[in-house]
Amino acid sequence: MISILNGEAEAQGCYNNYIIELMKQNRRDFIKLTGLAGLGIAGAGVAGCATRGQDRSPFRQSHTQRFNMSGYAAPGLETVRIGLIGVGGRGFGALRRHVRIEGVQITALSDIVPERVDKGRDFVQEYGHNPAIYHGSEDEWKKLCERDDVDLVYICTPWNLHTPQCVYAMENDKHAATEIPAAQTMDECWQLVETSERTRKHCMILENVCYDFFEMMTLNMAREGFFGEIVHGEGAYIHQLIQSRFNKNRMWRTEENIDRNGNLYPMHGLGPICQLMDINYGDRMDYLVSLSSQDFMMGRRAEELAAEDEFWKDYVGRDFRGNMNTSIIKTHKGRSIMIQHDTTSPRPYSRIHLISGTEGIARKYPLPARVATSHHGWLNDDEFRELEQRFTPEITRRVGDMARQVGGHGGMDTLMDWRLVDCLRNGLPLDIDVYDAALWSATIPLSEWSVANRSRPVDVPDFTAGNWQTNTPGMDINLERGGNTKLV
Amino acid sequence: MISILNGEAEAQGCYNNYIIELMKQNRRDFIKLTGLAGLGIAGAGVAGCATRGQDRSPFRQSHTQRFNMSGYAAPGLETVRIGLIGVGGRGFGALRRHVRIEGVQITALSDIVPERVDKGRDFVQEYGHNPAIYHGSEDEWKKLCERDDVDLVYICTPWNLHTPQCVYAMENDKHAATEIPAAQTMDECWQLVETSERTRKHCMILENVCYDFFEMMTLNMAREGFFGEIVHGEGAYIHQLIQSRFNKNRMWRTEENIDRNGNLYPMHGLGPICQLMDINYGDRMDYLVSLSSQDFMMGRRAEELAAEDEFWKDYVGRDFRGNMNTSIIKTHKGRSIMIQHDTTSPRPYSRIHLISGTEGIARKYPLPARVATSHHGWLNDDEFRELEQRFTPEITRRVGDMARQVGGHGGMDTLMDWRLVDCLRNGLPLDIDVYDAALWSATIPLSEWSVANRSRPVDVPDFTAGNWQTNTPGMDINLERGGNTKLV
Repeated sequence: MISILNGEAEAQGCYNNYIIELMKQNRRDFIKLTGLAGLGIAGAGVAGCATRGQDRSPFRQSHTQRFNMSGYAAPGLETVRIGLIGVGGRGFGALRRHVRIEGVQITALSDIVPERVDKGRDFVQEYGHNPAIYHGSEDEWKKLCERDDVDLVYICTPWNLHTPQCVYAMENDKHAATEIPAAQTMDECWQLVETSERTRKHCMILENVCYDFFEMMTLNMAREGFFGEIVHGEGAYIHQLIQSRFNKNRMWRTEENIDRNGNLYPMHGLGPICQLMDINYGDRMDYLVSLSSQDFMMGRRAEELAAEDEFWKDYVGRDFRGNMNTSIIKTHKGRSIMIQHDTTSPRPYSRIHLISGTEGIARKYPLPARVATSHHGWLNDDEFRELEQRFTPEITRRVGDMARQVGGHGGMDTLMDWRLVDCLRNGLPLDIDVYDAALWSATIPLSEWSVANRSRPVDVPDFTAGNWQTNTPGMDINLERGGNTKLV
Repeated sequence: MISILNGEAEAQGCYNNYIIELMKQNRRDFIKLTGLAGLGIAGAGVAGCATRGQDRSPFRQSHTQRFNMSGYAAPGLETVRIGLIGVGGRGFGALRRHVRIEGVQITALSDIVPERVDKGRDFVQEYGHNPAIYHGSEDEWKKLCERDDVDLVYICTPWNLHTPQCVYAMENDKHAATEIPAAQTMDECWQLVETSERTRKHCMILENVCYDFFEMMTLNMAREGFFGEIVHGEGAYIHQLIQSRFNKNRMWRTEENIDRNGNLYPMHGLGPICQLMDINYGDRMDYLVSLSSQDFMMGRRAEELAAEDEFWKDYVGRDFRGNMNTSIIKTHKGRSIMIQHDTTSPRPYSRIHLISGTEGIARKYPLPARVATSHHGWLNDDEFRELEQRFTPEITRRVGDMARQVGGHGGMDTLMDWRLVDCLRNGLPLDIDVYDAALWSATIPLSEWSVANRSRPVDVPDFTAGNWQTNTPGMDINLERGGNTKLV
């Protein structure tokens, strides 16, 4: 631990090693779980070979539900006391937002890097918060979870820590909210579901895109029947991040792109589409197929870097993830969803966000967002503005402008945090529940399995234990309940 | 045959029955071939269950090549004597174009409906052609193929007749050019390949989109290395045609959407992408997965129509094709291709036409067409115009303006016909060969099989018998040879 105290650079190095070791551990669990050990295309193929029955999929398909967390309302809290783990870029941004929300008290902060915690504490102190701080050793965050003055553990750490920290928080009687992905393996998905049901604690995935303005408008339109019956949806995370893939201070992002091949970040595209299709609340995913291109860029990048800097030599010849992953999902009601993932190619950003029904279509990317109700063409600017007037949801009308001022990806991060706090204060069900967290994250291991097995179809587990047929949609964009928390 | 002579309406009825009978025959062949008889899903699943080896696919994978038709140049013809079968909308349009091309002589016309043949003859006579005509009975087109004064049989008939007519033309020592699809079953694909190789006659699929202006420009860009190494491509046929799906005069189009489920019309999206990726000429398709949504519209349309008109009663409760089909293909070099098909949903027209490489991206739909070389955004209008100046291919520069005047989907149909005639006159290989015709069409039965088998992967046959590794690209958009035929 001495090295950590010697300064930021060494602290980062130690932090990297810690994270990477944990990742390797997780990967071993994943391989063991899915039967991919050894190698596995042929071996795993056998497990998925039967055409009918449970053994069509290597993954457990259901469970005995202890308690249905869909629609669950925890007792209201006048003040929401937040303990935040991970005060990096994303975590510090969350602090910036939470200090603007009425009824929030930041009671604890944790990060393995002391400088980050100090910076976070200094910032929130300006707004009258005085958090306890935890840093320096690997397990310090556990002490944060164990405190009595924390209601919600808000998690902004590297991907592989999300599930362990959510689970530990819930076990310690705290609600959990985690950055995406909530889980990386199917075992982790089930851990989240079963822990939430047993402890009756919320476990929300912080899928901010569900709160982006056009996405919420289309959800409103869908619920008003604008698209008729929904037939097909598309989402994506197409975002060139190759620079940050090879950043010495964020080696965990590099590691995430090695030895795993599939859609490693499906939630941004999938979340809003699932809500539009009432997945988990009227429909469910049936099966998935996934196909990845080879890697044409990251391996070469490692070679280029290694030619100039010894540090990168270990990354030459590693098995980098294919650049473009395309997955297709069939739902129980016979709809289709297409999801893509590409963080390497030189392309303008896109989440696609396409929703196509029997009476109309909307698509956001490539910008500008468009809507049509026939094959004759997209609506013009005047018609589009008319739709905006008609379908902008109440959450946007009430706090949209203020959220844009506070910021966070244009305001959606603030809307998400505001609504989370508002629901906890009012004792309301959350907009996004643990079944969403598990399902959206489960498409990661599902896509990996399909890619490793020559794009074979794989059954999607039902985390709701059959209750998708009767559960009701969570996302209350028209603030039918609550909505009285101030944003300042 | 008497009824046919009694007038257009009865002729149409008879024609419909004839076509539909043939279709049923073809479908039986298809089911028999693919092992879907009986049915289907479980039985066929077994055939495709092994994870390695030929039995992974229910389809024959290769053949012993008798002669390599890739790059094949038939002896030049000063005059190209054309016999055209099918003088409906598409066939009459072809006549309009061919009368404008130097060195074309229309020597014969055939259609089961006499009025159509008469109309076609009257039209071409104005341009100095005096074709023999064949009509009235089902097999009259065979007589056209048997004539001594026909060099090229140009086929514009319903889909199920394309292969039988191509094969019969080649067997009678004629080149064949057919509207899309060239084939509908895997057996038909192999018939085309083997007949062409045995007879050394060209068999071209009239994939006009390969001659559309932006598509050819992107092909030029790809060949100049603009996109770097190509990683991923997308194409589609998204074109709401539900009106023509329920048109009493074109019942074969209705029938095509019943009992078959998959991508029934992949060629427009696939053709240009395959050319961009040198598929058949440096790369090949490895395997394919395909997923269809349910039908949410055609069955209801049949019910609505039946409520008003007895005629449609037979169509109520039929098994209509799913509205949206999405297929993904992996290539030998590790690239991916995504292809969609939707002719029912109320959406603006799209073929997508997206090509993404290590150094850049282009996409045509939603219009306007765009190009980018980084994640910072699409090129602006000035930059786009500069690209056009740099990459517009010679075929467009030389005959593009005149082709636009002659017309046919904005001029691309004219460019296609002009280049076909130009190659035949100059004794050059055609731009598009029988292996393209077979492969692009083969994705129809391949997607059907995958859809029927819960989106299982299916191996794509290699119609080139391994010669994809050494064959050279056919599409000569810069007119390195020929190009001297006049368009007037």
